[in-house]
Amino acid sequence: MGTSIAVKMSKRLPVTLNDILKAQSRIKNHTHTTPVFTNCTFDQKYCRNFYFKGENLQKTGSFKARGALNAVTVLQEGGNPVPGVVTHSSGNHGQALAWAAKMRGLKCAVICPNNSPAVKLEAIQGYGAEIVMCEPTPTSRQQTCDQVSKDKGYHFIPPYDHNDVIAGQGTIALEFLEQVPELDAILVPTSGGGMVAGIAIAAKSIKPDIKVFIVEPQGKDVERCLTAGERLWPNPPRFLNTIADGIRLQQLGHVTWPIILELVEKQVFSQTNEEIMQGMKFCFERMKLVIEAASGAGIAAAMSDRMRNMDDSIQNVGVILCGGNTDIDHLPWYSS
Amino acid sequence: MGTSIAVKMSKRLPVTLNDILKAQSRIKNHTHTTPVFTNCTFDQKYCRNFYFKGENLQKTGSFKARGALNAVTVLQEGGNPVPGVVTHSSGNHGQALAWAAKMRGLKCAVICPNNSPAVKLEAIQGYGAEIVMCEPTPTSRQQTCDQVSKDKGYHFIPPYDHNDVIAGQGTIALEFLEQVPELDAILVPTSGGGMVAGIAIAAKSIKPDIKVFIVEPQGKDVERCLTAGERLWPNPPRFLNTIADGIRLQQLGHVTWPIILELVEKQVFSQTNEEIMQGMKFCFERMKLVIEAASGAGIAAAMSDRMRNMDDSIQNVGVILCGGNTDIDHLPWYSS
Repeated sequence: MGTSIAVKMSKRLPVTLNDILKAQSRIKNHTHTTPVFTNCTFDQKYCRNFYFKGENLQKTGSFKARGALNAVTVLQEGGNPVPGVVTHSSGNHGQALAWAAKMRGLKCAVICPNNSPAVKLEAIQGYGAEIVMCEPTPTSRQQTCDQVSKDKGYHFIPPYDHNDVIAGQGTIALEFLEQVPELDAILVPTSGGGMVAGIAIAAKSIKPDIKVFIVEPQGKDVERCLTAGERLWPNPPRFLNTIADGIRLQQLGHVTWPIILELVEKQVFSQTNEEIMQGMKFCFERMKLVIEAASGAGIAAAMSDRMRNMDDSIQNVGVILCGGNTDIDHLPWYSS
Repeated sequence: MGTSIAVKMSKRLPVTLNDILKAQSRIKNHTHTTPVFTNCTFDQKYCRNFYFKGENLQKTGSFKARGALNAVTVLQEGGNPVPGVVTHSSGNHGQALAWAAKMRGLKCAVICPNNSPAVKLEAIQGYGAEIVMCEPTPTSRQQTCDQVSKDKGYHFIPPYDHNDVIAGQGTIALEFLEQVPELDAILVPTSGGGMVAGIAIAAKSIKPDIKVFIVEPQGKDVERCLTAGERLWPNPPRFLNTIADGIRLQQLGHVTWPIILELVEKQVFSQTNEEIMQGMKFCFERMKLVIEAASGAGIAAAMSDRMRNMDDSIQNVGVILCGGNTDIDHLPWYSS
């Protein structure tokens, strides 16, 4: 059954298990096989076995290193000269692309809004990338990026709507299922959907009965869209008002959407700021790991009533601690 | 040469490599083999290879779980009935003993000063131990402990001056040298000295040329004592004014002292509060690990001029991240 489903998926979807296996062989010597953490107290309290995948300990402090390095490597394998790569993101993808370009000896430009925190700009420059400032609007961001791409001939590597990025993020599931083969479900904090799409393709190819769930900040409204089978979000795309800045984008991507619609559960875990903060605090206090708020959302989902009410077939639950890039001078529990 | 030194030590010192190997076989099924972390940025900046041993991820959040579990297990192996165990420590050793007693099905009482933070008392109670309050003075603490021991017949397990505790802590070095055989030196944050004594015995038995260094909060004055070969500390014992509350005791223990005097380097890394805080911050920001200030002292030592000026024979340096039990609502960089 596993094989037939895998074949079925490979005919319809733009990324296959084979793409993800190839991505793994491309990136594995430069990325960490991140550890899986467990916590007895948590399991007893929430009555299932939870497994936390520590992508906060990944290179550059988030899972984004995987997709960025895969995309850059594929570009170079194409045989044509690659003058450089460019993206617009002062966040985890910007850092990851800067790092990946450095790994592969490529030039890199990162478009950052002119109100970006200095610490983020320093991290990107630390990997040797050039920073190009733009106005803090989606329009200026894309225009500046297009201009740099045109002027310098750099290839644009978007943060999630890109097959090689999706394939790179899918390697998380290959590793996770090798570390914990008994997983029944995986909770994935989701912004544009590159990670959840990649994980769903890999996980459901290997283990067709596994359930992949989206975790979102309240207001993203993915459950209503998935249930309707339609993109019901208002345009132009907007950012949500959430402490989980890594997943504040409201809309899923256009490449990731059909994958998610086919493979991911319709039930979505939607978490408030307070819940996200409690998830973060649990992790800092009891698991001794620094995580960003998006990871806290994953823990909050594990703690939620929705999880408590899931049926007993879901015994072993994976949670992706997607990143650890948080401003430790402004932790959310100090601001209230 | 290794063997002859090991034999020489075993004749003189109260704890041997064999005791530590036995401790390892007693505790290994209940404790974590903690991971070793590296950081390229750190190595480049400080010009050596640093290996950070994550005892902050150990059971109960600190290395103390090792010594406590070994001591409790040895007690039970004695063949006589053990009604319970008792100690005076609201900190890491108190939590560790409560946990170890629960593991071994024993009763446990922990003497805590009546001004202990609620969160610490809850952690101890969470492991099922009974809390007995005392006045916040060393005298009241010891008297209350003696009284409980007499009334209930509980065995007193001190935090460091105890051969089985020292042997348990020594298991850190067995693990560390298996994970990183090329270590040339190990930096050990030190309070009463149980951990550094155990590590020195194990490490120097296996690898006689390895150097074991004490890391202390400024004012502990260990270098002067070791150089003189005398306990020059004022009495009665006092606590230092340091943010590293886990290592605020000024004096080394009386059981640990002769071991340390024989095996540990005379050069001591003495760190200020500001340096300790910077070590902590580096770890939170770049390594994504929650550590307590005592661990931050170890990182501060790695960053210090004293380390920078060490000779080139010391290429691979281990740092013990001894614990992660910090109050995340009062991180030191928020108080200034």
